[in-house]
Amino acid sequence: MNDEGYMDVALDLAKSVQGQTSPNPPVGAVIVKDGSIVGIGAHLQAGSAHAEVHALEMAGDKAYNASIYVTLEPCSHYGKTPPCADAIIKSGIKRVIIATVDRNPKVAGKGIEKLQKANITVDTGVGNEKAEELYGPFFHYAASQTPYVTLKSATSLDGKTATITGESKWITGEKARLDVHHYRHENDAILVGVNTVIADDPKLTTRLPNGGRNPLRIILDTHLRTPQEAKMVTDGEAETWIFVANGVSQDKINFFTTNTDARVIQLETETIEIDPVLRYLGREGIMTLYVEGGSGVNGSFLNAKVVQQVITYMAPKLIGGEDAPTSFAGSGIESLKEALQLSIKSVEMLGDDIKIISVPKEVI
Amino acid sequence: MNDEGYMDVALDLAKSVQGQTSPNPPVGAVIVKDGSIVGIGAHLQAGSAHAEVHALEMAGDKAYNASIYVTLEPCSHYGKTPPCADAIIKSGIKRVIIATVDRNPKVAGKGIEKLQKANITVDTGVGNEKAEELYGPFFHYAASQTPYVTLKSATSLDGKTATITGESKWITGEKARLDVHHYRHENDAILVGVNTVIADDPKLTTRLPNGGRNPLRIILDTHLRTPQEAKMVTDGEAETWIFVANGVSQDKINFFTTNTDARVIQLETETIEIDPVLRYLGREGIMTLYVEGGSGVNGSFLNAKVVQQVITYMAPKLIGGEDAPTSFAGSGIESLKEALQLSIKSVEMLGDDIKIISVPKEVI
Repeated sequence: MNDEGYMDVALDLAKSVQGQTSPNPPVGAVIVKDGSIVGIGAHLQAGSAHAEVHALEMAGDKAYNASIYVTLEPCSHYGKTPPCADAIIKSGIKRVIIATVDRNPKVAGKGIEKLQKANITVDTGVGNEKAEELYGPFFHYAASQTPYVTLKSATSLDGKTATITGESKWITGEKARLDVHHYRHENDAILVGVNTVIADDPKLTTRLPNGGRNPLRIILDTHLRTPQEAKMVTDGEAETWIFVANGVSQDKINFFTTNTDARVIQLETETIEIDPVLRYLGREGIMTLYVEGGSGVNGSFLNAKVVQQVITYMAPKLIGGEDAPTSFAGSGIESLKEALQLSIKSVEMLGDDIKIISVPKEVI
Repeated sequence: MNDEGYMDVALDLAKSVQGQTSPNPPVGAVIVKDGSIVGIGAHLQAGSAHAEVHALEMAGDKAYNASIYVTLEPCSHYGKTPPCADAIIKSGIKRVIIATVDRNPKVAGKGIEKLQKANITVDTGVGNEKAEELYGPFFHYAASQTPYVTLKSATSLDGKTATITGESKWITGEKARLDVHHYRHENDAILVGVNTVIADDPKLTTRLPNGGRNPLRIILDTHLRTPQEAKMVTDGEAETWIFVANGVSQDKINFFTTNTDARVIQLETETIEIDPVLRYLGREGIMTLYVEGGSGVNGSFLNAKVVQQVITYMAPKLIGGEDAPTSFAGSGIESLKEALQLSIKSVEMLGDDIKIISVPKEVI
């Protein structure tokens, strides 16, 4: 196997723990000596050992004069665990291959510098493209201190989310619906508008065949219309935070304070602006946010231009109808120049449905 | 090369003349003797020699004891040209390989029967799937006597065809727009609603780098609001037929009768129903119809359930806006069960845009 091959193993390890390491990034590491893998590791959970440390432990003495492939620049600072660069130096590793440099200002080249000062050969760029994709959310959060926003929509081929009477279950097929649960597992938080809560009373939990991690649930609810008996505030499956505008009375908010799983956050504005919501979530360590609509919420995120990734599921059917709802409401734009320009990252079939992943052009 | 390989050559020949043979189907033929191609042919234009005849002429004496690969069952009847089956028998061909049996009742197995009676080996089914796709429009027309309808839409990723102010030029990129001209070339007729004529004054001609065949142009125009100075009725590039409802006065219709390129067809109904329009076009020998909208026309075709193929171009942008137009207007449906169920035939990138070809499930 060549450098790319070993790095792919490390990248696959990192991907396998995506969603369980927050607020840390998912990292994989592979140690190779004389053409054989002698150690593998992944960062499993924030606060626990980093990928490099697991791999070094597995390699033991064989790490001496070996090469380590690591998806992200090893850290050089004391966080919840000691610096990985120090552990690598101590092990006698002679070469470190890094897929991407950590843009976190606490690291940002300092790990590489430390390794090089210890006469270790450092190569960067192997598997860089895949790593940049993997760490997009992490780098976005590090730079902006707000969550990386993934917006999902599911429509018919003609862009409708429901019939004129509002029937929308189920537009897409089972595979697409299962795919949604992967995103719930991988994201720190999931966000919907109160109309979705009132209409569907969803749980918004992760229901994968082998379980999965439930995201924090967030409701945008200007007038605090969330029913007190809504599953999201009573089922105890995950915390639910409700953002409300400044017009909501403290009495009304107090109804929810007896519920330990619910938190009501009152904004200072008359309507709910997306930016302060994202800043609040960022301060609370929410790195990734999955927006599941409805159309009003989607429109607000589009207007605020705070979407980092768009997942579109399209079912092979035509619904038609001038008044049938679409996935983005709101006031819209006048000129095509104002449209959010995207780049298509992938198009694939999920059962009978089409899944399109796209990202805004400016963030590529 | 094996049977499939030679048939692919014949199918490629047939595809290369698609659009220029109407009302005949595009056909390709390849004659092979001792492992070498000794004759190739394609049907170039209705009224001229069939593919088999061209190939036999090229092969000359070499046709004796050779095999002929032909994409469609050779005809057995006298039309504008003598039966191909007779020419094949006369040439001394010993084996005929046919991709698909002709469903035209004038042929429908009679060609094969004739060949077999002359002790020629006939094999069918080689390249059948590709041939069925190629002849879909032809078989549809033969069975229904109405045109095979291809409906095109071009939207943003969120299904909008324009901004809230109606700006729609250009949503998709150059490659998608060029692709549209291929469809104009390949279809006998192109159809739009009068609103499109009034708003855009389009020519609806074929403008490919090497020219192309202009389709007959059709306008659905209940009240005959087509401007007399519209390009489509004055540019002389192709004929234009205007379907109007029964409320339009003969005086108004007479304005257009001085124009030899325009024909006004008055229906017996108060509104324009799609079925009689298609029957009229079928009687006039229009085998294929390309519907380019707008949304009202698209909605009418969807409601009438007379679409055989849907081409969707999606541009990588989000327009948003509750009131931004979508590709299908009309009254729509109440229950999702009534939606037109499609099967995705292909998804591809055309430049930055996505092109999706789908067909209604029942016609597969």
